[in-house]
Amino acid sequence: MKLTKIPEQCAMVLYLSRWLALSAVIGVLAGAASSALLVALDWATATRMSHPWLLWLLPIAGLAVGLAYHHFGKSVEGGNNLLIDEIHDPQRIVPRRMGPLILVGTVITHLFGGSAGREGTALQMGGVLADVVTRVCKLNKEDRRILLMAGISAGFASVFGTPLAGAVFGLEVLAIGRLRYDAIFPCFMAAIVADQLPGLLGVHHTHYAVPFVPHMSVLVLGATIVAGIAFGLAGMFFATATHGLSHLFKRWISYAPMRPFVGGVIVALAATLLATDKYLGLGIPTIVASFTQPLLAYDFFGKFMFTIVTLASGFKGGEVTPLFFIGATLGNALGYVLALPFPVLAGLGFVAVFAGAANTPIASTIMAIELFGPEIGSLAAVACIVSYLFSGNTGIYRAQLVGDGKF
Amino acid sequence: MKLTKIPEQCAMVLYLSRWLALSAVIGVLAGAASSALLVALDWATATRMSHPWLLWLLPIAGLAVGLAYHHFGKSVEGGNNLLIDEIHDPQRIVPRRMGPLILVGTVITHLFGGSAGREGTALQMGGVLADVVTRVCKLNKEDRRILLMAGISAGFASVFGTPLAGAVFGLEVLAIGRLRYDAIFPCFMAAIVADQLPGLLGVHHTHYAVPFVPHMSVLVLGATIVAGIAFGLAGMFFATATHGLSHLFKRWISYAPMRPFVGGVIVALAATLLATDKYLGLGIPTIVASFTQPLLAYDFFGKFMFTIVTLASGFKGGEVTPLFFIGATLGNALGYVLALPFPVLAGLGFVAVFAGAANTPIASTIMAIELFGPEIGSLAAVACIVSYLFSGNTGIYRAQLVGDGKF
Repeated sequence: MKLTKIPEQCAMVLYLSRWLALSAVIGVLAGAASSALLVALDWATATRMSHPWLLWLLPIAGLAVGLAYHHFGKSVEGGNNLLIDEIHDPQRIVPRRMGPLILVGTVITHLFGGSAGREGTALQMGGVLADVVTRVCKLNKEDRRILLMAGISAGFASVFGTPLAGAVFGLEVLAIGRLRYDAIFPCFMAAIVADQLPGLLGVHHTHYAVPFVPHMSVLVLGATIVAGIAFGLAGMFFATATHGLSHLFKRWISYAPMRPFVGGVIVALAATLLATDKYLGLGIPTIVASFTQPLLAYDFFGKFMFTIVTLASGFKGGEVTPLFFIGATLGNALGYVLALPFPVLAGLGFVAVFAGAANTPIASTIMAIELFGPEIGSLAAVACIVSYLFSGNTGIYRAQLVGDGKF
Repeated sequence: MKLTKIPEQCAMVLYLSRWLALSAVIGVLAGAASSALLVALDWATATRMSHPWLLWLLPIAGLAVGLAYHHFGKSVEGGNNLLIDEIHDPQRIVPRRMGPLILVGTVITHLFGGSAGREGTALQMGGVLADVVTRVCKLNKEDRRILLMAGISAGFASVFGTPLAGAVFGLEVLAIGRLRYDAIFPCFMAAIVADQLPGLLGVHHTHYAVPFVPHMSVLVLGATIVAGIAFGLAGMFFATATHGLSHLFKRWISYAPMRPFVGGVIVALAATLLATDKYLGLGIPTIVASFTQPLLAYDFFGKFMFTIVTLASGFKGGEVTPLFFIGATLGNALGYVLALPFPVLAGLGFVAVFAGAANTPIASTIMAIELFGPEIGSLAAVACIVSYLFSGNTGIYRAQLVGDGKF
């Protein structure tokens, strides 16, 4: 019996204490920032709903966001990809201005009716706060890398109320097909602490209910795999279309601030022509509805188009809540043809389109369990993994490395 | 918008169909084998309980197991490590005899009162069945590697009734600190299919209940971290003690079949002197009791000693159910000193000692959610990760590679 391991355990106590403190700090900061974001987005959404004419100002809002980033935000335009790049290859501290710019940009996008998400904002605020801590505590490069990952985990966990999915997301998003454990304690601890903040500050997350999950059978498994393929293709097309359209905007409109102006015109006109506001903003009411009633079979496509125009033209926000919308409504639509209850398909689509687009199948599976309960676990795993396999080696985060490949 | 990805998706349909078939086959085979094992162990345990004198035959039973492996089983003595080695560095097909030898050896160990587990048996049967499929389907080296991993996932999933934990275990157990995704679909699919078999065949898993999980607080988090350290040290000492004692047995007793004979004498004498049978066999009743009532504070130590003597001397079975026992009773004992309800600590110990000894923190966290419900998720993650960090770079599976390290 070797007992020579004891000194290693002493070093581990120091490691644990140090990272417990650092993770708690970044967890509290990122959790508070996410709470502020959630409150601000609730306000922006409620204001837009009660003043529909705000949509007509969307082009002007786009111009304002574009001008702000053009004059003050060139160094932080990379957004999430900048963070992922910094983790892979640390170059310089993330500029603090990324925080206020993305927060204000996101709130403006949502106030005037752009179709976008919020996790990108939470992640970037988490990243900025991690680098504030890096500076204050004079951390070295390696510690900084870990803290940035913890900041991503904390941001994701607190904005969606899913601590374990957030923790795994921070570990899983960096590379396709590989997960390293060197940041496992900081990522989980920061995510768990951050997840406490919204509740403590009186901010609540939306509740989604999948009332009944059928027993596993060949038919159920088959339907889940077919749905998974559809979700993966949706995720891939979303990522490809966003990158492609962004490229086109850049080629067609050389003056950057004009791009979100034009994007705003397109979104405002489209919503007016379709006479609906359901593809604007986060779209939470439609996501909730996809669990409770059959929806229009093309709702997922509407959200898809509104979101790629909004984000590719230069509005700010995230991709993930629109991906939840696209997935939940696509799942709902698949309920017309597949032998699974539509609330189950909505739940599977919710997590699986995201799994494919972000290449994060394990975080997405855990998210399904955290949001919808453990009964959906096995089906969610199948849908998320199949979606991940079918979404190709691209994703919404271009800075993601291709690790060991998908198969 | 690049649409050149389509051919890749066609190749993926072929990949998916092929691995769906292979995973389903290995899932059905491994699930059926696990069901047979569970039935056989139920019979062996019931028979031993109603005929306590069987314990006195434990030395003879040990001699029989020792002779069988000495004359017919030298090539498969490596057990789980042989499987892990074959996955890392494929050399030759796993001999089919590993299946019957480990099954009969395990049943004999349990029938006569050895203290051991069952997952090693399920894993090895899964591995042998995977190589039977390899031979029949003439798979190449790379496919064989994936199928062996799927066999491990399927065996683990079906023997414990935890499909997602089993799937992740097969991916996570190969290397410390790193998880590769290249076998993700086969491992999950085989695990999910295998998990169906015991239920279909009328075999049921034990139900453990953690009735109440306290809300997160600084005190709760602190107690969980302290408990996690204790669980990690227990896991490390278990692995170190089993390896060390096995080494001593080999040095002291050169004729291999005599080792389990001597081990059997020690176990039988100790149980008689202590006048208890609760450290014999799987110990399920005591594990269940650790969730419902305060137990003796040294029960974990009793199981620890009985198990290392049983396994280090050459009896067959697994390590994991004894680790569940050690963890659940150690957690129960910590209820005397830590500010957490003892059923919560029992549940945390159940998964976290295993997480530390096997270096599988994510599989163990998922297992906690599958066995005890999602409420325990965050605490289980903390306990499992802290245990994993404190268990050092050794574990019960010596063939495990040290991947990217723990921190």
